[in-house]
Amino acid sequence: MAQRACPVGLLATDYYDNIHTFIDEASEDGHDFVASPLAHPSFRRFIEGTEEIDAMNSWRDSPVFQRKDLIVKSPKYSDLLVGVLAAWYRFDSPDHELQLNSELALKQELAWASHLGLLSVMLPVLPEKNVTNMARVLNNTMASISYTQLWIKVPVTSKEGGESPWKLWNRIRTLTEHSTKIHVALELTKDLPDDDELDRWLAEPVKALIVPHDVFVANPKQYPVLPKPHQDFVKIVMDKLRPNILVTLPEVPSFQNASPVTYHEYIRFLNRNLPELDAVDSFAAGYRDYLQAPLQPLMDNLDNSTYETFERDPIKYQQYEEAVYRALLDRDPDATKKTVVMVVGAGRGPLVDCCLRASERSKRDIHLYALEKNPNAFVTLQNKKEEEWQDKVELIFADMRTWKPSHQTDILVSELLGSFGDNELSPECLDGAQKFLKDDGISIPAAYTAYCAPLSSTKLHNEVASYKDLEHFETPYVVMFQQVCALADSKPLWTFDHPNPVFPCTPEGNPVNNLHNTRYQQVTFDVAKPMTMHGLAGYFESVLYKDVMISIHPDTHSPGMFSWFPIFFPLQSPVQVPAGAQVVVDFWRLSDKKKIWYEWAVVVKNKNDQQDLSITAIHNPQGRSYWVGL
Amino acid sequence: MAQRACPVGLLATDYYDNIHTFIDEASEDGHDFVASPLAHPSFRRFIEGTEEIDAMNSWRDSPVFQRKDLIVKSPKYSDLLVGVLAAWYRFDSPDHELQLNSELALKQELAWASHLGLLSVMLPVLPEKNVTNMARVLNNTMASISYTQLWIKVPVTSKEGGESPWKLWNRIRTLTEHSTKIHVALELTKDLPDDDELDRWLAEPVKALIVPHDVFVANPKQYPVLPKPHQDFVKIVMDKLRPNILVTLPEVPSFQNASPVTYHEYIRFLNRNLPELDAVDSFAAGYRDYLQAPLQPLMDNLDNSTYETFERDPIKYQQYEEAVYRALLDRDPDATKKTVVMVVGAGRGPLVDCCLRASERSKRDIHLYALEKNPNAFVTLQNKKEEEWQDKVELIFADMRTWKPSHQTDILVSELLGSFGDNELSPECLDGAQKFLKDDGISIPAAYTAYCAPLSSTKLHNEVASYKDLEHFETPYVVMFQQVCALADSKPLWTFDHPNPVFPCTPEGNPVNNLHNTRYQQVTFDVAKPMTMHGLAGYFESVLYKDVMISIHPDTHSPGMFSWFPIFFPLQSPVQVPAGAQVVVDFWRLSDKKKIWYEWAVVVKNKNDQQDLSITAIHNPQGRSYWVGL
Ligand SMILES: C[S@@+](CC[C@H](N)C(=O)[O-])C[C@H]1O[C@@H](n2cnc3c(N)ncnc32)[C@H](O)[C@@H]1O
Ligand SMILES: C[S@@+](CC[C@H](N)C(=O)[O-])C[C@H]1O[C@@H](n2cnc3c(N)ncnc32)[C@H](O)[C@@H]1O
Repeated sequence: MAQRACPVGLLATDYYDNIHTFIDEASEDGHDFVASPLAHPSFRRFIEGTEEIDAMNSWRDSPVFQRKDLIVKSPKYSDLLVGVLAAWYRFDSPDHELQLNSELALKQELAWASHLGLLSVMLPVLPEKNVTNMARVLNNTMASISYTQLWIKVPVTSKEGGESPWKLWNRIRTLTEHSTKIHVALELTKDLPDDDELDRWLAEPVKALIVPHDVFVANPKQYPVLPKPHQDFVKIVMDKLRPNILVTLPEVPSFQNASPVTYHEYIRFLNRNLPELDAVDSFAAGYRDYLQAPLQPLMDNLDNSTYETFERDPIKYQQYEEAVYRALLDRDPDATKKTVVMVVGAGRGPLVDCCLRASERSKRDIHLYALEKNPNAFVTLQNKKEEEWQDKVELIFADMRTWKPSHQTDILVSELLGSFGDNELSPECLDGAQKFLKDDGISIPAAYTAYCAPLSSTKLHNEVASYKDLEHFETPYVVMFQQVCALADSKPLWTFDHPNPVFPCTPEGNPVNNLHNTRYQQVTFDVAKPMTMHGLAGYFESVLYKDVMISIHPDTHSPGMFSWFPIFFPLQSPVQVPAGAQVVVDFWRLSDKKKIWYEWAVVVKNKNDQQDLSITAIHNPQGRSYWVGL
Repeated sequence: MAQRACPVGLLATDYYDNIHTFIDEASEDGHDFVASPLAHPSFRRFIEGTEEIDAMNSWRDSPVFQRKDLIVKSPKYSDLLVGVLAAWYRFDSPDHELQLNSELALKQELAWASHLGLLSVMLPVLPEKNVTNMARVLNNTMASISYTQLWIKVPVTSKEGGESPWKLWNRIRTLTEHSTKIHVALELTKDLPDDDELDRWLAEPVKALIVPHDVFVANPKQYPVLPKPHQDFVKIVMDKLRPNILVTLPEVPSFQNASPVTYHEYIRFLNRNLPELDAVDSFAAGYRDYLQAPLQPLMDNLDNSTYETFERDPIKYQQYEEAVYRALLDRDPDATKKTVVMVVGAGRGPLVDCCLRASERSKRDIHLYALEKNPNAFVTLQNKKEEEWQDKVELIFADMRTWKPSHQTDILVSELLGSFGDNELSPECLDGAQKFLKDDGISIPAAYTAYCAPLSSTKLHNEVASYKDLEHFETPYVVMFQQVCALADSKPLWTFDHPNPVFPCTPEGNPVNNLHNTRYQQVTFDVAKPMTMHGLAGYFESVLYKDVMISIHPDTHSPGMFSWFPIFFPLQSPVQVPAGAQVVVDFWRLSDKKKIWYEWAVVVKNKNDQQDLSITAIHNPQGRSYWVGL
């Protein structure tokens, strides 16, 4: 739980002459921190140029604060303080002087905040339409400030007739190249927009959530609480983004039992009562939005710790056991035969255990082989045989693609799946192994399908961008999604079926080449709300046997299974997807004699007239940045 | 003329069993080269998979040509030959086998062409709708071929109900990251689209122009000629892009006097009769689309050769002389006074000569000073004084920003302009110099305005991209535009007026800081035809005195003036601009104590609903990549 605790602070609604008293009182009432203006309203005269001309000129030439223009005059309490910047900036003014004064004053305030050592400052107003000059000023100013971070206050709903705040934020973010120093302080309003619009914020760098007092309502006992839709959204944001939370207090108590303490206490109550983490979430806690290079289990040998991690999955082995169980019943309905079962890629043996349990439960006799090519895992297999399995299992140390079997099997069991299904070369390995399988034999899995969906995530984009090279933008990552939002539901790309009877073989039964394992698919997504697309989410769904499935696809995810996180294919340059546009994704699985790789490209089209709005490059041509070795 | 000569070749319309005879005859008829299919139609059986299964499989595993499937069987004549690839590729087929065979066969053909040492091959058909897979195949295949270039045949008009060929080409180009190995072979059709649509091709890498025989009409003497619109377009393309030209011949002569010779002779006739190059064009011949870093005449000292080049301009000095002449008349209507004239930044002295001529012509007495800070140019000034001017001119070796004048001038003459007007720091220099000017004195120039327009140019984009770094995409270039097409007419950004009475000064009369020379402007362009935008064109227009102007702005360009080429501000990632969209450009001129720089950003919006279609980063924040030193 503690890891989901959000600090709760008090946002000043006035300019306090004695900021220290304000902070003391706020702390005594139990707030973790406060947010207060740094400068006094008198500072406004410089921004608006109403100061007398000589003073104005000398300020413009070298801006310095006069003590009387400051509310926060010293670094005392600076660890408890978020500085709120002046509210009178007019970066969008047609008056160049006003623009320029705003820029000079903002620099001055930020320099002061940085001198005080403030961790964060908040810009309290967005321009109504034109944010470009503001984006430029923020970008340039923040570049020279090393420590302090900026939050921009953005309301969740637009003013009557005003621009969508998300659209303004989206421009700022894109114009500043997704600056990692500029974040969102999302302000709740009495009315909330629909869920789609709220969900978009989950893909944004929301560092603070502002809950103004007028959003609270009274509960039957006359304490301040949030309406249900606000509660729900606050909880989701707490769970996914762990923001700082800022409440404001009314000047006069709104409800009978409302006191300065009750607002933050209610927020903390919500925070304590987030839904329990399920098995997957607890497992994933440390991995959220953390990019991992996908495994190369064929070229490399997996570590002991990797085996240990995925062997803890409570669901995967259950499903495999069930699949083998059903296959054994079908294969030997009268329990008269001895069914040959071969686990290929046995690792440290858990699928061998599944087969033994299935045999026991089905009361069907089996002859069990376990094949593995990793010499280290093979030692563990030998230990298990010595200590546990003994005669029940025969071990084979070999690569399934080249091993020459002495006889054939009824059931071939394997788990060579990656997050995208085929990305750990299951198709290539099983093509080699299917020569062990009798003509009417069963492969478990019988099939797997790759899925993809367009995805928005400032966080993931910035993680990839931090490497500052093209290569990392042409590499997929295994990642537990957290601060993301899909632009549309995912769609299937391609399927691999096993056994596969249709490719040309050598006399030994091996595929002559790998052409039959190449794939190409174009899928089109309709997008309802404007979004920035940063990449593609990838998933798989696999039929183990008949209706026994495993899936990491959001709609069909096997509950509690945590062996696989989704896969993320980034886009080099994020693309804008306006409302009602279509995202056309082209995806390829390609191969030469030594490797397989993926390429992907995106075209954003206007749905009505089919005009092209954005076209990306084809990513990873010839596997130049990323490939999986055969 | 010779530099605009385009080779004219013959495009085969059939599969010739004896290619050598065909080439011999074409050469004898006077063609410079031929284009012929490399493979025989029999090769089609592999692409379509109609070959018998074993042969098919063995071909797919390692494609090799059988002699009978080839028309071009040996490298003989390969220097005269453009290879035409097979016409049966179906990269867009829903049938994966057909796609795959197409890819294998294309690789095979290209490998053969490369082995033959062909300079170019041509792909004769575009898919009807989906070019993405074709783009991927071409991109991957061309990457492994070092020498041979690819032309894609693209007709200027779409088939009834088909996609716009430009749109298909635009996708291919963008998907392949503007590959420098993939070009256009533009095919004329009987009907031509409107000029806007034709003009777009001038920004594309058109390496060949195909003029099929059925586009020709008979002239009164029954010789083949082109209709007027075709003539005009062919001439423009010849002038700007210098493509290879390919004609085809009818099977039976179409007109009484048409012979195999008459088609290419007519094309050569057009080529010989391109409009004469004007002074600017002749001067610019070697500079077309060549990127030059803008001068830094303040920080650096110009070379003698640079002065020599711009002093050859026939117009600039004429206009300056006229401006000084008019100012002298206005200043001293009755010819009773002695007018003080000061040339600041006199260089090697041509503006001094202008002043002397103006004085003579106007019969007005002047007292002439010439100030220059470049020590090397100052030697030339001394030579001129010694040998020519003698007492007529007083020389001052100084920086105009810091020199303390003993008395003031009536007319201040300078030429410190860059292609964007203020980009060579004329505003900053003249701010310093205006203290020499009497209160009612005249500055020549009196004003200058920067203009910009959104621009498409594959060529310029590729030139910048070839540096493979961000820095070069955030730098403007001075460049004589050639293979470019503007998306809309240019618009003014900002103006500098001289003298400028409004900035705060030190007691010595120098500006306290440079804030008054910062500028910010947002301009919006309406775009009619879909295009890819690669950057911004920049121009200036300057009022020297009253209605005496100099301009490099396309609409008002001073005829024959060649001292300035336009300036090009690139975009890091080209953006798609659909028909009817708006391009919003934000441009800044910014300054700190040591330098000035520009920043620029582009938002493409849907005009109707104002949705954002593309947003670029703000380029060159804080002048990180490009700046001009004060
Ligand atoms: C994802 S692990 C699964 C291990 C175990 N079956 C389980 O489910 O816990 C895949 C295993 O297949 C093995 N493997 C991969 N390719 C193989 C090949 N070509 N021949 C034999 N083993 C292979 C790897 O070494 C690894 O131990
Ligand atoms: C573009 S050249 C023009 C030269 C000459 N007037 C002509 O039109 O041929 C500009 C000249 O101004 C000089 N210059 C630039 N800044 C100057 C400054 N601050 N003080 C004095 N001279 C300067 C340069 O050295 C250069 O010779």
